[in-house]
Amino acid sequence: MNIGQFVDLSQGKWRSMRSGHSLAFQYFEEVLSEVSIAKLSEEDQAVQELLASLEKPEGVVTSPFKMEWEAESDWEPDDPTAVSAGSCILVPLQLSETKGLIVRSVGYAEAEQATSQYEFSSDGTLLLSTIYGQSIAEERIWFASENVRCRSSVVKTSEGSGILQTSFASEVRRLTQ
Amino acid sequence: MNIGQFVDLSQGKWRSMRSGHSLAFQYFEEVLSEVSIAKLSEEDQAVQELLASLEKPEGVVTSPFKMEWEAESDWEPDDPTAVSAGSCILVPLQLSETKGLIVRSVGYAEAEQATSQYEFSSDGTLLLSTIYGQSIAEERIWFASENVRCRSSVVKTSEGSGILQTSFASEVRRLTQ
Repeated sequence: MNIGQFVDLSQGKWRSMRSGHSLAFQYFEEVLSEVSIAKLSEEDQAVQELLASLEKPEGVVTSPFKMEWEAESDWEPDDPTAVSAGSCILVPLQLSETKGLIVRSVGYAEAEQATSQYEFSSDGTLLLSTIYGQSIAEERIWFASENVRCRSSVVKTSEGSGILQTSFASEVRRLTQ
Repeated sequence: MNIGQFVDLSQGKWRSMRSGHSLAFQYFEEVLSEVSIAKLSEEDQAVQELLASLEKPEGVVTSPFKMEWEAESDWEPDDPTAVSAGSCILVPLQLSETKGLIVRSVGYAEAEQATSQYEFSSDGTLLLSTIYGQSIAEERIWFASENVRCRSSVVKTSEGSGILQTSFASEVRRLTQ
């Protein structure tokens, strides 16, 4: 598996069930949302602007894409951190067949531009590691089948010791519009 | 990572938060439980009986263990399939450094004795595949840190096409009794 193939498999609309686990408080969060993933041209203006913002770009730009999400139901309406809709431009920079970087216009654990390191494990799982100001996010994304994608995340403190929360999303491809 | 090291890291008491996703109905299930994992002697009677029940035992018996679980809260008291407490003997049979079989006295997706194939991926994740009469369960278990273990599962129909449900558990080691 390489990043180009992975983005190709990920294109489309997905219905997502996401569970968040807040470990210290043993608190569950549940969110249903719709996620859409669409490839962008390398010449796309947003892609070019994101690349221009990098101090030292490295790697080969491969399959940039846009991810959009919208919560269908958010069972924690009072939680200000639960963003109900958003979008993000992601630009993979391939360093080798199985490794590279992914630049995101909006981060996963914190709302700032971020660069993730990625690597595919031997079974084709995409492993992502992102260092933010206050936290480190480790994500795994894999295909359980052509039409079911799983994503897990673990968010640690910057010191790398304490694990604050985990999450798991099951995403089912919408086969019809 | 090999199975002996993995069992060593898994020993102890764990506080588990588990989310189940029923994909067709977009239904969430949440269970808090306590899981305990303790190694057994290869001479243990239950281990010997489990091995004696196999038609063609193969591989090297490595680090058999007992897993016990008890739900602290089960938010679906009317669901007869939600077992609130139980225990299981597991006997790994190592075929190579990274692959082998695990015989379980009670299955994960169905309550029958089962033999799983296991393999470690390049990042140390334990991948388990178990074929039952009516379903195939694919599990992944990995350590996010020494004291946080993650487990995901995907249950498919025997034909291998339809994915019925997924689950994700975050397990935090109990450092004190």
